[in-house]
Amino acid sequence: MNKNDKDIGFVETGYFTFGEEEWDELKLESGQSIGPVTIGYETYGELNKDKSNVILIEHTLTHDAHAAGFHKGDLRGGWWDEMIGWGKAFDTEKYFIVCSNVLGGCKGSTGPSSINPATGKQYGLTFPVITIKDMVEAQKRLLDHLGIEKLLSVSGGSMGGMQALQWVASYPEKVRSVIPIATAWKQSPQQLAFAEVGRQAIMKDPNWKNGNYYDGEKPESGLSLARMMGHITYMSEASMEEKFSRRLKNGDYSFSFDVDFEVEGYLHYNGNAFVKRFDANSYLYITRALNYFDVSGDKLIRPNREIDTKFLVISFLSDWLYPSWQSREIVKFLMSRQQDTTYCEVQSNYGHDAFLLEYEEETRLIKHFLERITNEK
Amino acid sequence: MNKNDKDIGFVETGYFTFGEEEWDELKLESGQSIGPVTIGYETYGELNKDKSNVILIEHTLTHDAHAAGFHKGDLRGGWWDEMIGWGKAFDTEKYFIVCSNVLGGCKGSTGPSSINPATGKQYGLTFPVITIKDMVEAQKRLLDHLGIEKLLSVSGGSMGGMQALQWVASYPEKVRSVIPIATAWKQSPQQLAFAEVGRQAIMKDPNWKNGNYYDGEKPESGLSLARMMGHITYMSEASMEEKFSRRLKNGDYSFSFDVDFEVEGYLHYNGNAFVKRFDANSYLYITRALNYFDVSGDKLIRPNREIDTKFLVISFLSDWLYPSWQSREIVKFLMSRQQDTTYCEVQSNYGHDAFLLEYEEETRLIKHFLERITNEK
Repeated sequence: MNKNDKDIGFVETGYFTFGEEEWDELKLESGQSIGPVTIGYETYGELNKDKSNVILIEHTLTHDAHAAGFHKGDLRGGWWDEMIGWGKAFDTEKYFIVCSNVLGGCKGSTGPSSINPATGKQYGLTFPVITIKDMVEAQKRLLDHLGIEKLLSVSGGSMGGMQALQWVASYPEKVRSVIPIATAWKQSPQQLAFAEVGRQAIMKDPNWKNGNYYDGEKPESGLSLARMMGHITYMSEASMEEKFSRRLKNGDYSFSFDVDFEVEGYLHYNGNAFVKRFDANSYLYITRALNYFDVSGDKLIRPNREIDTKFLVISFLSDWLYPSWQSREIVKFLMSRQQDTTYCEVQSNYGHDAFLLEYEEETRLIKHFLERITNEK
Repeated sequence: MNKNDKDIGFVETGYFTFGEEEWDELKLESGQSIGPVTIGYETYGELNKDKSNVILIEHTLTHDAHAAGFHKGDLRGGWWDEMIGWGKAFDTEKYFIVCSNVLGGCKGSTGPSSINPATGKQYGLTFPVITIKDMVEAQKRLLDHLGIEKLLSVSGGSMGGMQALQWVASYPEKVRSVIPIATAWKQSPQQLAFAEVGRQAIMKDPNWKNGNYYDGEKPESGLSLARMMGHITYMSEASMEEKFSRRLKNGDYSFSFDVDFEVEGYLHYNGNAFVKRFDANSYLYITRALNYFDVSGDKLIRPNREIDTKFLVISFLSDWLYPSWQSREIVKFLMSRQQDTTYCEVQSNYGHDAFLLEYEEETRLIKHFLERITNEK
């Protein structure tokens, strides 16, 4: 078997639908219900006989179920392809990896751009406001469907880390270990503020039309603005300096408002690329879920509750969007609750993006942690 | 004389116009010229006999010539009223203070919202792109008009600090001392990026109409968005936590996209207030001037040039928009050039706003520095 045979290779997104009957609908934190709900998901590796090798990978605000391998006709691999595969951190030789698109998303799972069967039209703003807990509930249904009762681990960066923490808060007995990366157990007011400016950019776009834009022009100006601002927060000062410094695209100032600096071109490029692949209403719903998320303190592990879950918490020193102090807050609480906890602050210049880029360091940390968890079964 | 008699009290903005003839126009860095140019300005205190007590105060992106005292009918004092007045840091008992609105602004000085005498209509985007150097040239004309040949000091925070540094670069022999606060000698790529997102918010607003909006609806959505984002960068994580934390306006989540968190309400309030007092095109022009500013290294003091100017550089530890390392860069250069330099990193939680709020600490530093400069004459 050569190395290529061990690669994940081509993958396809699968779909699971539930809640077609009222009794089976997903009950949401808001008190509303929704059904039917479809969840897009991918799996990598093989489920072992006693179903004890399952790792759930959780994605960020703008990612999807396609975490690893390749889709036919697309040269780009999954968003965490460096981390998932034969011999990698999440080793598909050993583990069965599941990654699903979040509820409220636009990449295979039911969200505001999905057709509401009651009306035959896209939900738009009639889609109920959902939370990170609701996303985890939908995943739980998927795992029930796959016959998986317990997770060896659940991991993700940024919003993915929040979902991982939510799994502990919701189903501690089902989670043997958790690896939250570059995340927080609740957003700070600065994070709330950035989210609100992103949403306002979308909602102030005349094409947004209170969310009813699916038959016409889309609010691309607003969505691209939100994305441009987002990109600033994903990088660090140091990585921007290294990547762009004050370099000019055309050698000299144009004395105009055209793109002069390379960093301006980068923001434009990414803003324009994003609107082709993401739904503006999903951006609103998912950022709102981020705002509402709060599993701080006893909400993470209920008082007088003993749980077996083991924690590996990772943060990055130049990440100013989800700074290390937010990870330390979680770690301090876990230690006060005598929880088996490993914490690592990784030195990196990549800012929040580090969790997608520092895969060598992450691999070293995660690989051995997962081996320990596996051996302790 | 009681304390109130020493207050600055009511002030009025004065106006000086030059460049009405072609030979007298302002030559700009872009190679273009502009005239006539009006500069709005205020003065506080009395000019002494030998005109040796003049301090020039420079304002930020969104401030104006009204730095101290009160305008009739307006209960709010000038933007640096805590710093300018009898017995204050910039002591009007001793010094003659001049503050002028920048070229390109919308508060009394000629800018894109001014009437172009050649057309009888607002300049809009036909206004030439201006630089910090051009702003200083316009101020130089004002000082010439006032008969002032030498400055005891020039000071300002943020963009005001850039103008102060530009004075040294342009006219070192006219500047006995400089007090740049919370500033940089060139913008970092992160600062360039925030500026570009702010401009794009304005330029993507359909009411912007390529800058020709003066007869109709103004691009208020875009300008308020730019301002909301700006406010995030002016505060620190710590000051946001103290001021808002995750407090809710109405006690519970609304499960909607309405304002739930106090920090959201704050951004909306400030965005809406800003559009009533500021011109969107001025925002474009002035942020572009910030982008183009660069007096790093030998551009600040030419090689083999000895100058007498003394420096007091002040930064604030929680300021992440103009972080202390940018001030340290200036200080290190000044020390390498054997320049008389004092540097202070002030401990503060207020972020970039600190230069407007930490006036007690600033007063201690500036008062004694100015006394030293005065005594050394």
